Amino acid sequence: MRTQVGIVGAGPAGLLLAHLLHLAGIESVVLESRSRAYVEERVRAGLLEQGTVDVLTETGVGDRLHREGLPHSGIELRFDGQGHRIDLQGLTGRRVTIYGQQEVVKDLIAARLSHGGPLLFEVADTAVHDADTEHPSISFLHDGQARVLRCDVIAGCDGFHGICRDSIPAGVLRAYERVYPFAWLGILAAARPASHELIYARHERGFALATMRSETLARHYLQCRPDEDIAAWSDDRIWAELHARMARRDGVAQVQEGPILQKGITGMRSFVVEPMRHGRLFLAGDAAHIVPPTGAKGMNLAVADIRVLARALEAFCHGRGSALLDAYSTTALARVWKAQRFSWWMTSMLHRFDGDDGFEHRLQLAELDYVCRSPAASLTLAENYVGLPLSLGASWAA
Amino acid sequence: MRTQVGIVGAGPAGLLLAHLLHLAGIESVVLESRSRAYVEERVRAGLLEQGTVDVLTETGVGDRLHREGLPHSGIELRFDGQGHRIDLQGLTGRRVTIYGQQEVVKDLIAARLSHGGPLLFEVADTAVHDADTEHPSISFLHDGQARVLRCDVIAGCDGFHGICRDSIPAGVLRAYERVYPFAWLGILAAARPASHELIYARHERGFALATMRSETLARHYLQCRPDEDIAAWSDDRIWAELHARMARRDGVAQVQEGPILQKGITGMRSFVVEPMRHGRLFLAGDAAHIVPPTGAKGMNLAVADIRVLARALEAFCHGRGSALLDAYSTTALARVWKAQRFSWWMTSMLHRFDGDDGFEHRLQLAELDYVCRSPAASLTLAENYVGLPLSLGASWAA
Repeated sequence: MRTQVGIVGAGPAGLLLAHLLHLAGIESVVLESRSRAYVEERVRAGLLEQGTVDVLTETGVGDRLHREGLPHSGIELRFDGQGHRIDLQGLTGRRVTIYGQQEVVKDLIAARLSHGGPLLFEVADTAVHDADTEHPSISFLHDGQARVLRCDVIAGCDGFHGICRDSIPAGVLRAYERVYPFAWLGILAAARPASHELIYARHERGFALATMRSETLARHYLQCRPDEDIAAWSDDRIWAELHARMARRDGVAQVQEGPILQKGITGMRSFVVEPMRHGRLFLAGDAAHIVPPTGAKGMNLAVADIRVLARALEAFCHGRGSALLDAYSTTALARVWKAQRFSWWMTSMLHRFDGDDGFEHRLQLAELDYVCRSPAASLTLAENYVGLPLSLGASWAA
Repeated sequence: MRTQVGIVGAGPAGLLLAHLLHLAGIESVVLESRSRAYVEERVRAGLLEQGTVDVLTETGVGDRLHREGLPHSGIELRFDGQGHRIDLQGLTGRRVTIYGQQEVVKDLIAARLSHGGPLLFEVADTAVHDADTEHPSISFLHDGQARVLRCDVIAGCDGFHGICRDSIPAGVLRAYERVYPFAWLGILAAARPASHELIYARHERGFALATMRSETLARHYLQCRPDEDIAAWSDDRIWAELHARMARRDGVAQVQEGPILQKGITGMRSFVVEPMRHGRLFLAGDAAHIVPPTGAKGMNLAVADIRVLARALEAFCHGRGSALLDAYSTTALARVWKAQRFSWWMTSMLHRFDGDDGFEHRLQLAELDYVCRSPAASLTLAENYVGLPLSLGASWAA
């Protein structure tokens, strides 16, 4: 088997890369260890930046997104019993769209298959070889048969727990990491969302977030201990805690109760490896970096990596040299670190830290009040939330 | 002895309050434990916000400041071997002025004495009595004689180590505090400043700041350990460290050497008490709050407190009720916490933290790069640096 670009992983990153390469006339093969049903149902992020919506729209995979997605032109910051709206659209001219990651995956799989693939699910024992030569390859098992895929370039889009990053020899990558001393308890409930937009609440009892999957499916999160026992959280306790943390003195936009369909706990971590490349192996998305979910940056960052990588591969595969490919890691990392900064800032501003003697709490309130009152500070939140420019070079489209 | 307002402390806060009250036709007496020579030579802060310059100018004590002060319309952030200018004036229409705190003190003492005082130096055993009644008083020794000053109101402007805050019964105030794990080693040198504006440098070896007292007196600071032994810092070592931390790849605006006239180490702390009042005793300036020096906010915050307090005392003493006086603590604290936030942010962004595994360092570089590239983020730095509006109510003059 031979192709131009071997892609490991059929999440949003791998599938979008295959799609963009196809449009540029470049062959690729996508290898995924899970089943199609699994990746199409895997619930992850659900908020798309304008730039993410734009790339899906411009490349012909945005029809259902435009029919079913919920565009949001603002968010609410709730603290000290009051709500403050950040007018994303008014401040930046751009907005965000609620649309589940698994829906993006379904749309991209449908597009891939309509183009004839190749897209292989349930591959096993995947391994990368000779990444530091001009003839890299991927070995794997499929339908019980041992196969080898020879390629010009390999894209590692197989997530934080994937095999690509681990295939790189020790000493090549430097990892930067921070694990936060809390986690999120998330629920999906058959209930009306608390508001038509997202609500980020800072409360002395801890952070809470009210979001949604649709107009009848609410998604709520509560800050909890990283080792929290989910069995200790009855439905009643979850609702009581959400009501307490989301309380607004004027009673507006309260959390609405309904049957809880799912419960789960998510750890919070910041992680980056540098560089995002080893020879002919290029890492993108969660394989190279993880952000805490507070800024809703994870999937959007993966999409941004892929936009940069696809452009570079297009130049390389069409014989226009390796300059863009050589710049890929540096270009992507400039944006990755800005998103890490934003996610860390949102996390720090909104969560309760144990051991705080009150100073941190007061600083958080001062920061939130400043962000809401100062037009410049509101704009810094808004421009990051809707997504920074793809290239952070000299020109900055604020 | 009797007066309307008894003022403890002849620093910038106490002296400015006496001056503003005099102009409003309100009597006060200022009591200072040190000698006139001591307070006139005590080197402290040296950067005035536009609002501080304005109040001194408008009340007739700005002549020498306008002759001798150095107006600055920008600052430089230096990191990763490059310099980036934040154009304070272009972004906000306002600027800052280099003029030593002790010069402000000299000007205010001269004004006070020209109005006939009263201003008593070298008082001892000062104590506040009956602050929670309508008849507070201050006892003290002056020229060997025990005296009692009866007043309507007492202003505690006697700094962090003063007696006023400590006179308030336990349980009335809540203190918020953070001590930073580093200090500043400061020098005064007979040398040309490195640049015509301030340079804030973030370097892997630690923070450095290049500022000035005049065009022939440079003032430089180096981040050091909080328990640093100043004897271990020879002049040569100080210059070598300044050159290393201030290095710019293009060689522009290098530190200039010259005879070192003074050396000292300053601890770094954030501190706030709430409320800034107990009965008829009102705290202002360092008596109520300390900021780390990174944002140059200390004296400016004291001046802002006094502007709010003087207006409230004017209404109260002229029989227009106590509403403003009752709001003093809340009004002042809203601004105090914004300045704490800004000072903490500048400190966090620019200093080296021990135990950092590299993540913090990368975040700092991302933050600095963002602050320099995003016009909105540049404006958040600039609007805080030149000074937020006095009242942080509904209208925000960004």
